[in-house]
This record gives sequence, structure tokens and C-alpha cells, in this order.
Amino acid sequence: MSIKIGLVGTGTVGGGCIDVLQTHHDDFARDLGLDLELARVCSLIPEQAEAHHVSDIFTLDYHDLINDPEIQIIIELIGGTTIAKSIICEALEAGKHVVTANKALLARAGDEILTRANEFGLEVAFEASVGGGIPIIRPLMHSLTANSIISIMGIVNGTTNYMLTRMDEGFSYAEALAEAQSKGYAEADPTADVDGLDAAAKIAILSSIAYKSLVTIDDVATQGIRTLDAIDLKIAKERGCCIKLLAIGNNTKDGVDVRVHPSMLPAEHPLSQVKGVMNAIYVVGDFVGETMYYGAGAGSHPTASAVISDVIEIARNIECGGGVRLGKPWSKRAAFVSQKDAEFSYYLRLPVSLSAAFDVQVFAKKAGFVLKEAPCAYHDQASGIIHYVMFTEPAAYKTLEAALNSLTCQDGLLMGTSAVIRMVD
Amino acid sequence: MSIKIGLVGTGTVGGGCIDVLQTHHDDFARDLGLDLELARVCSLIPEQAEAHHVSDIFTLDYHDLINDPEIQIIIELIGGTTIAKSIICEALEAGKHVVTANKALLARAGDEILTRANEFGLEVAFEASVGGGIPIIRPLMHSLTANSIISIMGIVNGTTNYMLTRMDEGFSYAEALAEAQSKGYAEADPTADVDGLDAAAKIAILSSIAYKSLVTIDDVATQGIRTLDAIDLKIAKERGCCIKLLAIGNNTKDGVDVRVHPSMLPAEHPLSQVKGVMNAIYVVGDFVGETMYYGAGAGSHPTASAVISDVIEIARNIECGGGVRLGKPWSKRAAFVSQKDAEFSYYLRLPVSLSAAFDVQVFAKKAGFVLKEAPCAYHDQASGIIHYVMFTEPAAYKTLEAALNSLTCQDGLLMGTSAVIRMVD
Repeated sequence: MSIKIGLVGTGTVGGGCIDVLQTHHDDFARDLGLDLELARVCSLIPEQAEAHHVSDIFTLDYHDLINDPEIQIIIELIGGTTIAKSIICEALEAGKHVVTANKALLARAGDEILTRANEFGLEVAFEASVGGGIPIIRPLMHSLTANSIISIMGIVNGTTNYMLTRMDEGFSYAEALAEAQSKGYAEADPTADVDGLDAAAKIAILSSIAYKSLVTIDDVATQGIRTLDAIDLKIAKERGCCIKLLAIGNNTKDGVDVRVHPSMLPAEHPLSQVKGVMNAIYVVGDFVGETMYYGAGAGSHPTASAVISDVIEIARNIECGGGVRLGKPWSKRAAFVSQKDAEFSYYLRLPVSLSAAFDVQVFAKKAGFVLKEAPCAYHDQASGIIHYVMFTEPAAYKTLEAALNSLTCQDGLLMGTSAVIRMVD
Repeated sequence: MSIKIGLVGTGTVGGGCIDVLQTHHDDFARDLGLDLELARVCSLIPEQAEAHHVSDIFTLDYHDLINDPEIQIIIELIGGTTIAKSIICEALEAGKHVVTANKALLARAGDEILTRANEFGLEVAFEASVGGGIPIIRPLMHSLTANSIISIMGIVNGTTNYMLTRMDEGFSYAEALAEAQSKGYAEADPTADVDGLDAAAKIAILSSIAYKSLVTIDDVATQGIRTLDAIDLKIAKERGCCIKLLAIGNNTKDGVDVRVHPSMLPAEHPLSQVKGVMNAIYVVGDFVGETMYYGAGAGSHPTASAVISDVIEIARNIECGGGVRLGKPWSKRAAFVSQKDAEFSYYLRLPVSLSAAFDVQVFAKKAGFVLKEAPCAYHDQASGIIHYVMFTEPAAYKTLEAALNSLTCQDGLLMGTSAVIRMVD
């Protein structure tokens, strides 16, 4: 008997899902004994449906899918947190399983949605919400379950990783962003990527799973890459390091420590080899030790791979009977480590006017942080700037912030933006 | 209600499993709602049970586990293909699910065991059989199912990867082997590792899953690392490459292409960064593109992580009811690409006596293979050897083999072993 699927959203990922279902329908039937039938497709753009030859099952109204008693699985791929949420909740109320790639929604209302699914005995699967095609959600839920997870560190935003890779090759921030936009990796408004919000949503989801307690996007201390430039990557490379925007979720005795920020890490670290738009998630468990999952973090076909693999898992569960097997969904709220007082070693770069009288040692001393080594000065004659670079002993971010704020008050001293990057072992 | 587990084997991995179950019993109960009880432990070495404080549930006779009607899951960790097979088959006949790390058995009799499990409606789980703690079996079975898998390339033997890493640092083969043995990474008889047999068993298992047809260890064209030495890794490095023992399973239009051999691959390849005893499996799917899974490929606690995660999956399935959801097990035999006529580009090193009259160009021409570039000569004055190094255009292995065999017939010409390494993009 066929398992009927309703798809909402015919954009990049939705189109990819139609491709997978069309390409592999017969393979799924032969190899898995599953007849997956795309029964209904909904979006606001009929042309996209036409381009994928599904006009005959197309509708503009998602209620046509919800109200179809034969559809057992709804795929939600419209994104956003309003209509998408209505679709998912109405699908659950109508007794349908849901597959979604919607990280923004899950990082804000994941507990509500999963609790509702559990009440109805239905599954909401969301492998595609983090790391595109990379299997990471299911490995955390099904393959690392023998462990207490100690730490997660991920490169989970392909846009910023692409930009940092190009900046490592000498591009300025502006050049790297423009190229990412021209290639379709970055939106016209790149805020969600470059300010780390996309990565924050993803680490909230991963931390919720790994630490079995609710972490939302609002719990993530988030710092983006806007103030970085090629010189920072050049200096990192000279020291045998690289700079990545890391999404980090640590399990500590005081609670969950969850944050997104530019990070300087050793070139030997497995994550430092992740280039361009590729993603990787590095997970440490108390028994398994270090593991890493690598692949395409976005794109039509990779993300569709994750969506349809979720559909297949649900279809298998339907076929073999039995209930949903995901355990309790994030029922309790996580305790959090205060980010305000947390201390880290930092890389600090101050672009100062060549003509200014500025003593970097005095600055550090007055600001109240200790330098690990003598500061360096990089002269840029063309622009009349000296970049002072400091590596600090562990210090609170607020200490550095206050020091930087005190500087910007002195007119004409600070030339451009300063960079503050955490050191990661 | 508790789920009772019987463990057979109290060595490295068995001991690790006892550790996990003791450490995390209460966590599993709280987070997953599973009360996993280690009910009975069997091995031939009571002292190992004593060391793990399980003497009270210890027995020397595995039938005590098979005949205990309350035990629902048997963990088999004794290895080998005789008694281990009896234990697994008897456990299935007694209605018990099985978890095993036994790659040798699965690569020889996997179809028989899985078919029997299917007949009984039981699960045989074996995540720990490949890549130690790395989630790779379940990702292939549950997370990449939307894809046709195109290619698998794995560093799946930690011992040889450790040796190659040390040889890359200048150790001779003999020194690297001796160190691996002194650290407990290699057995006194290192055959299974250095001749590639362990890797062959693992790629047979991965290929069977990925290509949904039976591949056994006997189907794998296997070449080990015995003839390599530090000079090969040095030359590779000079060319921006590294040498790894790769286990490869490709899906081609003519059948499955499955082999294990030393491979020279570019330093930028994700697998080239995998150092020491770490393992990684690189999987390419038609929709997901390239993915990689990295972690500890062996060891007590990492491997136990995979075993107990399998136990948890089975326990969840028992708790929520419903049947086994793994689809048909490798029911048909794979078609295979003939390795005899397959052509690859090779790195070829011939150690020739300094005093011999030897023309490498004439040798290549006579042997019938074409060189990609002019050959190089590395003089080793101390030992009186010239190492001639050639990079060939695609050629059949048998052509090279015949050429090398013709050489060794000439007394006093070949000094030591020649190295034949395939080039991988």
C-alpha cells in the first residue's frame, strides 16, 4: 500500500524533494518495500510546481493537504515561524506525521511542537534543520545515546564559512560578502548569516537534543563576523591557526554553555579543514570520545536528502507498526552558564591611527586584562593604520568590551572596527 | 519494567560495555525511560568479570544466558566465526535480539545471520563492527536512505593508520610496527591489520548495506602495507599528497567495485587529515553529495558506545512495540567489477642497486605501461640503493605485477621490496 505525502513549499529544498521522490520512487519500492507517493503539493508559486511537473497535484491552499485523510506525512518547507507553525500544528491535529527543515521555528517553539507531537503519538522529524544533508540529528538521537555528551562544536553556517575561506585567501570582508551574494550563498540582507543568528538557531536545536533539556535561540550568546577582516585570518595563519565561526554547546557542571562566535583554533583541529560552504559538527561524548560529521550544509539536493530520509524513517515506522520512539522531548528547561562572567583567552586587534600616541601595554593594564605575550604591531602604511594585536590570558568579555568602548570615545584614535576572537583549543 | 541484557565476552569491549551500563544506568532511566539491566555475564575469564564487579552474575556457560527466558538482548563480543556464530544463532532461536561487534563473522556469514533474524522478527545490530564508536552503520541504514550511494572510502583500520602516520614522521615500517605493537594497537601477529584483512571485512559490511546486496570479505581485492616505507610517504608529501590504506566500495554501472589498498591522495582530501588511530568513512550519495564520519575506530569505551547505543535502540523498539524496521537484508548477491582488468594510475617505487645497469624508461616501455611524467631517482648512498619512482597512466595491476616479477628474476638488481600504490583523486 502506498504512503501518501503532502509537500508544502516548492522552493530550493522543496524542489529537491520532488527530484528525490521522482528519481528514487522505484528504488524505495524495491529496496525498502516502501511505495512513497507524492500526493499533493502546495505553495504560493504555481510556476515552481510546473517546473517540477507536479501541476496536476498542485494547490495554493495548504488546507487541501491537511484535510486529505489519505495523506499520512506532511513535509513543511516554507520556513518562517508563523504560517509554518500553523501548518505543522494543524497537520499534527489531523493525525499526520511531519518532516521539516525549519530551524528558526524549532529553535523558538521546538518544545511546544514536539510535546504536541508526543501527545498525538506522532513524529516530527527535522534532520534537515541542522547541517543540511549531514546526518547529525539522528546520530545524536540514535547512535550516541550511550554517552553523556560533553561538547558540541559546529561549523553550521555555510555562508560565513565560505566568506572566511575567501578572506583566508586575501579577500576583504566586503569582497567576500559580495561574492557570496553573487553566488547565491548569502541573502541581499545577510544579517541572519553574518550576525550568527542562523548558527544560533542550529546550536539551540543540537544542544536541546544532546542535553535533553530546552535551549532556545534566545539562550545563545551570539557574536557574528562583521568586524573581521583578511588581516585577522592572515595573523591566525602565521600562528598555525585558522578562524571559524563556531556554534558551541558545552555541558558543564554549572549548566549548558551555549554560544556562537568567531573562534581561532589550531590548524590541526578537525574543524579547521572544513572549507567553503561545507559544514561539520564535532561532538565529544564521555565514552565515544571525539567524533565529527562532515558534508554539505545547505543546497537543494543535500537538504532534500535529509528530508526524504526522514520521510523514509517515518514510513518504515508506519509500516511496521508501533509507536514513536524518540523519548521525552526537551521537557525540562536547561540550566545555563552565565556568559557574562565566563572567562576566555582572546585575540584582540585594534586598528589605531599611525599618528596617534597610543601605548598598547598601558591600555591593557588600565583595562584590567593580562597579555599572554608581548603585543604585535602590523603597519598598514597605505591606510595610515597600525593594527595592534594582543593575545590575552582568560578574561571576561565585558572587560574587553568596556576597554574597547573606552577607546572609541577618544576621537580619531580607533580606525575602523576592532576584532575580538575567542581562542579555542 | 526492566529490559534484561546478557553479555558474552568480558575483554576490552565487553569491559567497556559494563562500564557504560554501570555509569549511565540512571541516566538511561531518567532521559529515555529505559531500565537496562545487565542480568548475566559470560566469558572464559572470571577474573575479568571480577575486575568489573559482576562476579555475582557471572557464568562460564553461555547457555545460561540463552536459556534465561527473561533476557531479551544478547551482546556477543567474543569475536571469531565459530562459537560466536553459535551464540548468535542460538540467541535468535531463543527469541532474543542480538548486538555484536563481530566484523569477521558478519563479513562471512552476515546474510545468513540477518536472514535468520528477519525470519524470527528479531534485530541483529552491529554498529560497532565498523569504525568503532563512529556512527556509520545507522547513518547508512537510516539517514542516507534517500540516496543511491555512489562511493564509500574509509580509513577503517586504526593500526595501519597509526603506522602510516608514524612513517610519515620518518619511522621505517619495522619501527612503526614495533611501536604499534608496544602500544597495544597491533597484535603480535599483525597479519589481519597490515595485510588489509580487517579493513576488507569492514568494507564488505559497508558495501552490503550501501549497495543492498551481499558482499563478503572474499569479494574484496586486498593489498596491504607491508612493502611501504618512509621514503614513499616522504615522496608523497613532497607532491602535496599523503598515503593511506583505504577501504573502497564503489557502485558502478558494471557492478560493485570493492577493494583495499594503499592509496596516494591529495592533502586537501578530507581523509588525508585523519591521523594516528583515528578512523573516518567518506560516503558520497547521489543527492547528499560528499559526507564524512570521523572518530575513534577502536578501543574499549568508543566501541562500547556503539554497542550500548545499539542496545538502546533495540530496547526502545521493544518498549514501543512494532516490528523490526531494517528492510530486506542483502538478499541478492552483488555483481562485481572485475579487478583483474581495472586500470588505475599508480605510484611505483623500485629500489635498485647503485651498481646495476638499469634504465627505468626501457623497463616501463618493455613492461607495457606509460609514464605520466619523467621518472625520478632518489639516491640512498648509505645503503647503496637508487629508488626509481614512476607515476603511471592508467594501467592494469597485472601489467605492473608481471613487470615487477620479471625484475626480481634478475639477481642483484632489486634491493628490497618495491612499492605499488594507487593514485586516488
